[in-house]
Amino acid sequence: MSVLADLLSGLFDRRRVDPLPVDGDDRRAPSELARALMNAPGEDAQRDLAARLLARYGEQDDAGKRALFLSLARDMDVDRDAVRDAVDAYARAPGRDTYRAFAAAAEPPRQDLIRRINRVTDATGRIVDIRADLRRLIAEGGPDAPALSALDEDFRHLLSSWFNRGFLVLRPITWETSAALLEKIIQYEAVHDIGGWSDLRRRLHPPDRRCFAFFHPAMPDEPLIFVEIALTRGTPDSVQDILSPDRTPIPAAEADTACFYSISNCQPGLSGISFGNSLIKQVVADLRVALPGLSTFVTLSPVPGLVRWAEAEGLPAPDRGDAVRRLAARYLMRAKTTSGEPRDPVARFHLGNGARLHAIHADADTTSRGRAQSWGAMVNYLYDRPEIAGNHRRFSETGEIAASASVRSLVADADARPPKAEEVR
Amino acid sequence: MSVLADLLSGLFDRRRVDPLPVDGDDRRAPSELARALMNAPGEDAQRDLAARLLARYGEQDDAGKRALFLSLARDMDVDRDAVRDAVDAYARAPGRDTYRAFAAAAEPPRQDLIRRINRVTDATGRIVDIRADLRRLIAEGGPDAPALSALDEDFRHLLSSWFNRGFLVLRPITWETSAALLEKIIQYEAVHDIGGWSDLRRRLHPPDRRCFAFFHPAMPDEPLIFVEIALTRGTPDSVQDILSPDRTPIPAAEADTACFYSISNCQPGLSGISFGNSLIKQVVADLRVALPGLSTFVTLSPVPGLVRWAEAEGLPAPDRGDAVRRLAARYLMRAKTTSGEPRDPVARFHLGNGARLHAIHADADTTSRGRAQSWGAMVNYLYDRPEIAGNHRRFSETGEIAASASVRSLVADADARPPKAEEVR
Amino acid sequence: MSVLADLLSGLFDRRRVDPLPVDGDDRRAPSELARALMNAPGEDAQRDLAARLLARYGEQDDAGKRALFLSLARDMDVDRDAVRDAVDAYARAPGRDTYRAFAAAAEPPRQDLIRRINRVTDATGRIVDIRADLRRLIAEGGPDAPALSALDEDFRHLLSSWFNRGFLVLRPITWETSAALLEKIIQYEAVHDIGGWSDLRRRLHPPDRRCFAFFHPAMPDEPLIFVEIALTRGTPDSVQDILSPDRTPIPAAEADTACFYSISNCQPGLSGISFGNSLIKQVVADLRVALPGLSTFVTLSPVPGLVRWAEAEGLPAPDRGDAVRRLAARYLMRAKTTSGEPRDPVARFHLGNGARLHAIHADADTTSRGRAQSWGAMVNYLYDRPEIAGNHRRFSETGEIAASASVRSLVADADARPPKAEEVR
Amino acid sequence: MSVLADLLSGLFDRRRVDPLPVDGDDRRAPSELARALMNAPGEDAQRDLAARLLARYGEQDDAGKRALFLSLARDMDVDRDAVRDAVDAYARAPGRDTYRAFAAAAEPPRQDLIRRINRVTDATGRIVDIRADLRRLIAEGGPDAPALSALDEDFRHLLSSWFNRGFLVLRPITWETSAALLEKIIQYEAVHDIGGWSDLRRRLHPPDRRCFAFFHPAMPDEPLIFVEIALTRGTPDSVQDILSPDRTPIPAAEADTACFYSISNCQPGLSGISFGNSLIKQVVADLRVALPGLSTFVTLSPVPGLVRWAEAEGLPAPDRGDAVRRLAARYLMRAKTTSGEPRDPVARFHLGNGARLHAIHADADTTSRGRAQSWGAMVNYLYDRPEIAGNHRRFSETGEIAASASVRSLVADADARPPKAEEVR
Repeated sequence: MSVLADLLSGLFDRRRVDPLPVDGDDRRAPSELARALMNAPGEDAQRDLAARLLARYGEQDDAGKRALFLSLARDMDVDRDAVRDAVDAYARAPGRDTYRAFAAAAEPPRQDLIRRINRVTDATGRIVDIRADLRRLIAEGGPDAPALSALDEDFRHLLSSWFNRGFLVLRPITWETSAALLEKIIQYEAVHDIGGWSDLRRRLHPPDRRCFAFFHPAMPDEPLIFVEIALTRGTPDSVQDILSPDRTPIPAAEADTACFYSISNCQPGLSGISFGNSLIKQVVADLRVALPGLSTFVTLSPVPGLVRWAEAEGLPAPDRGDAVRRLAARYLMRAKTTSGEPRDPVARFHLGNGARLHAIHADADTTSRGRAQSWGAMVNYLYDRPEIAGNHRRFSETGEIAASASVRSLVADADARPPKAEEVR
Repeated sequence: MSVLADLLSGLFDRRRVDPLPVDGDDRRAPSELARALMNAPGEDAQRDLAARLLARYGEQDDAGKRALFLSLARDMDVDRDAVRDAVDAYARAPGRDTYRAFAAAAEPPRQDLIRRINRVTDATGRIVDIRADLRRLIAEGGPDAPALSALDEDFRHLLSSWFNRGFLVLRPITWETSAALLEKIIQYEAVHDIGGWSDLRRRLHPPDRRCFAFFHPAMPDEPLIFVEIALTRGTPDSVQDILSPDRTPIPAAEADTACFYSISNCQPGLSGISFGNSLIKQVVADLRVALPGLSTFVTLSPVPGLVRWAEAEGLPAPDRGDAVRRLAARYLMRAKTTSGEPRDPVARFHLGNGARLHAIHADADTTSRGRAQSWGAMVNYLYDRPEIAGNHRRFSETGEIAASASVRSLVADADARPPKAEEVR
Repeated sequence: MSVLADLLSGLFDRRRVDPLPVDGDDRRAPSELARALMNAPGEDAQRDLAARLLARYGEQDDAGKRALFLSLARDMDVDRDAVRDAVDAYARAPGRDTYRAFAAAAEPPRQDLIRRINRVTDATGRIVDIRADLRRLIAEGGPDAPALSALDEDFRHLLSSWFNRGFLVLRPITWETSAALLEKIIQYEAVHDIGGWSDLRRRLHPPDRRCFAFFHPAMPDEPLIFVEIALTRGTPDSVQDILSPDRTPIPAAEADTACFYSISNCQPGLSGISFGNSLIKQVVADLRVALPGLSTFVTLSPVPGLVRWAEAEGLPAPDRGDAVRRLAARYLMRAKTTSGEPRDPVARFHLGNGARLHAIHADADTTSRGRAQSWGAMVNYLYDRPEIAGNHRRFSETGEIAASASVRSLVADADARPPKAEEVR
Repeated sequence: MSVLADLLSGLFDRRRVDPLPVDGDDRRAPSELARALMNAPGEDAQRDLAARLLARYGEQDDAGKRALFLSLARDMDVDRDAVRDAVDAYARAPGRDTYRAFAAAAEPPRQDLIRRINRVTDATGRIVDIRADLRRLIAEGGPDAPALSALDEDFRHLLSSWFNRGFLVLRPITWETSAALLEKIIQYEAVHDIGGWSDLRRRLHPPDRRCFAFFHPAMPDEPLIFVEIALTRGTPDSVQDILSPDRTPIPAAEADTACFYSISNCQPGLSGISFGNSLIKQVVADLRVALPGLSTFVTLSPVPGLVRWAEAEGLPAPDRGDAVRRLAARYLMRAKTTSGEPRDPVARFHLGNGARLHAIHADADTTSRGRAQSWGAMVNYLYDRPEIAGNHRRFSETGEIAASASVRSLVADADARPPKAEEVR
């Protein structure tokens, strides 16, 4: 399977001689090339201009990129009058031609521009990177941010359609995977830093470790999201145990639990397009078939917002493990955003997927990051097939959080002993 | 290369355990399932309903399919008032939220429905087939045809985005290709029928034959379009010579000409999404690199509309090869559609790609089909790199047809000797 | 799996630029080149001469080939005196040098010649073909046959070592396999002729059909031996049923029996090197894992020597199915070669592998070949894991044939009613 | 290419369900199992015993291994009387049977034993490792060494036949290669230590670096030998320059020189079977095709025996670069073994391959190893196609060493200024 998987990149990599090599001497501004591309009559001319546009884009600094984005945001926005006319015409005489005219009017030309750029060899990854630039510039703020945000919506809309779940490919990442790809895994790991090749080897090579990533056929060398898994007996209660260099691996067939201990999104240019739920559900399904001995699918997840929340609430730092657990339980079950969702982003994600808040552990991540964000607390979210649909429905309809008895009793404790009092001594 | 190519199917074929096996007992009507799918809260529930919808669709007869299509056309059309309100709101306060609201209003819910269906394993090919059904039902006419045509536009729009050139993969088709795929080549050949495996072998196995197809990664077992090529010395003037069982192959390195003698679209559900120009340009680029001895890239193409046109014009059948050639020249250069394009669809395609009308041959296709459609006439269209861009521009701007001196003199002859007079004796 | 399998050929096919392209103008006789090759000092010169030798061999007619073989048989035989001296020296002073000298003396130079030839790119298949030529010439008889037979022993010895079971690769042959390879399956089928691509498709494509072949990495495009299998409910009693174009396939998971109905050796140049037992045992092991529902592994085998034996014995043709079965039972259980083995070669093979003679069917092969060789009789040999080792041991030690009660009772019947009497009327 | 290459391992790895799982409880001594294996009647029983023998071998300490080897050396040696009888019989009546009997007598049973072991899944690599054990025990000396050496000859003979050049596969090793394989490259590098993954990346990833290895299909995860190459402009004169972390890579197409700066044999169990010459010649041929700009193929090689020789000769350490170069020239051109070959093993290898001694550099390897073995001197050996055959012939026939004018003048200098005198001050 890993061999097959590794083929993907190769297959698409060497895919073709470019039929239209780019004239490298075109010095027009990207926005000018974009306009020319929209006006070019034929497919060949369009591909040529799209390739020039990408080449020129690559030479721009942030000011040049911002200039292009603004030009797209303003000059290639929807024509509101045309939309009104077209929707009226379609209302009067529904049919192919009026509908097509309406659809054309309702879609801003910049969407078609992005599609035309995508016809160039290997352009998809470039477009994802362009959106990452755009989002970075939007985050810098300024008066153009609203217009750029509308442009970002067009990118999101197209990329969301192109990165539809039906087009993604799940690949195992193993010690047999190419070094070039593994290097990216080291770089993209966002939860528990990978401290070099030895650390990576400990996460991939032992028989009780697994890693899976989603890829898109048009970006075969770039993982979109990946998850790291420990196969264990019983539910792990600390990431130190999982990552310990000294631990003794167990045969995969002897594990009863698959613990998802790290999930990392890799592409900032795909922000707002969610892969995590699909990845977890797919990996659970695959593991269930490959290792029938697995009966428990659970995460060991950080609580990234705990300290920040407690500080915002003016709560003192808890002094003991018990107090940390109570405080975390209260935070996870009670702290909500204005729209009524859990304040903790990781909780929001797993509870939204239908998982249950299963257990809260103190001293579970003793790294400086773990201490800084949650006084070392970590959480198990449990993916229990029979209850996932119901959990999800109740969570999305009423905001109800599925939690184990032990977590509920922690909250009850926390309610009984308000942290303020407890910490004062 | 063929080995790499053959991997594609395998790679994606065995791609995954379906995380959500379908409950086969759901007996709801497809339109009801479609509505449920649009209302389902979470990703898992949506995928489950999409899979059920596909399963139920597969059990429908034409009446059932038409009922679903009508329901989508009517109940999931754009809400015109919502569009007007949203475009006004966006005009008043341009920004991410108003733009997003406008984009949501301007897109009919059925587009999102199709995207949701596409999340199911292997759904893309199913969607292409569903559109083929839809187009068949539209072609039957009836009062619902305009509404269904608008729905068809949505399919076309999405499939056009998904089957963007940047996502397609070119694969050589050779005698090393799997029998399962070759069987489809036999079935899909639309220009010169392949009379079984021996005939196919003659088109793939000799060193002076090539075949290439475009594939989409989500439909790895289904060619989208393919082209058959003969490597020759000099430009072929009859398809009998090319397909003769008795000919002696030449080493590929000795050929100076690549003759594209058959191009077939394979998927009626991708109607209106053009792959031919890209395919030809890509294959020319690849062959140019692989075989530097090739200097001429030319087609040997049918003239499918000649006889039909002559009959419509009341012209008698020409009695000799010369007269056939003159008549074909006149038809190709002079006969236009109401929008001013060449009446012959094959001419329209190649001239639109920037090719030149190079030569016209009589007795070039002596099959009954060749006789019936063009009195055996065939045409070479020449793809000459330096002139392609100019030919294309003049053709698309002024309708000017690039033609060789010999073809132009045939037309002059034809003008001098009007066919009526000639044939009367 | 079939995808992986199909890679093999590709992998090795395009394996390398030949570092030493052959000078095509060397007109020396093969035997002269062979001598030069044995005397050439370095690796490069040897590979060059070996390549020339192969090129020149390919241009020889049978007389030229015979001349080369005779030269090898006579001029590159073992030097008997050298052997005697070397064995004495080794006896006197056993050690590396004396042993090496003995081994060198005991091996005829022609063995080393064949090894040197094998260093040329893709030479292994050529060597197999050369041995096929040699065996053909030996079979023609003549005074040189004994000398050539000794040479053949050297080929057999080396090829047997090179085609050691540990080097063979099992590949499934499916409808996804390349047409080029399937064409060879059609050609090599030796038991039940494959009447073209439709017949082949019926043997590979249905879900209840399997085919497997052994390959050697150095001859990736050439199957060595293959077996065709029908997955059935119950034990088949006629090949017509298995090969019927009208039958309804069953899902593989519903089969309880794997019936090996055709085994073909492909390479006459590998005569005397047995692959059949390994192939059957390996395929049984693989199928057992892939399809746990299979409980019976059985052949449907021809009885090629029945008619010939009966005629030699002066027995009349039996008139009814019962009589055919009795006669076949007597033949299979009683007719022996001078060395005491079953006279029927197919029986010898399967019984030697530890199978049991399970059932005998009349009208089981109604083709003209089936009628001609066995009056249509066919046999099931049963591979029943628990008894294979014992059957094999008893067969090889005492010649005892494992047979089912029904077969034994057929023999008893046959003994009671001698065929002569029965047929006389 | 690297993708195809990486498939090899996968292909063979997952090759098969073992048809004969081993009974792990057989506690017989390996030598007893070896005897049983030679006496077992059928293929299945033999494979079973071979698998048990391998399993039991893996549990032995050195004493147990030595006991097995001694048993094979003594009890399965050639029967000298049988050889004498058989050679006489063959002399009297040459033919297949007498020849076969002779061949059987002349081959010690232990050779057949090794072949039988090789029928077990993945046994080839195990056999190579067993020979490595054997050679280690022989190197320890003792009274049994001569007998064990004869046994080692049998291993060498069989492995040499199995690892025939025609069976080897050349694979590029790149940064796309699997981490599992790259880990072995780090481990096996024998000339210039690879100091971890960053160092390895610098040797594989830049566009002006190449690495190639030979593999055997039966040991797809184990390189046999590999070579590291720097593409340069001009001939490198120090390994520090090649391995510098700070250097700026050049585009491969701009290189005129391919410098082979490290060649490592990986398998001690294949000692005495030479792959290096083939590897270099093959890689030169491949590079010549892939990069037509390359005109010079040269090594940068160590002089491992220089210091040792000088010390043995009682020569003082040279004090300056010039003196080192003169001394190295004298050593390489003049110092010979008793059989008249160059004393330096690296010189022996390259000169034996037909290379020319091209240049000698001081301060070319400033590592402690480089200082210790050759006072930092390194050598370029030039592989110049037109002269390779002649160089090889003269070297092997007369011992003549091909050397450039500059090297010859260094020797002349050295002769004129005997090192003793020079160093005395």
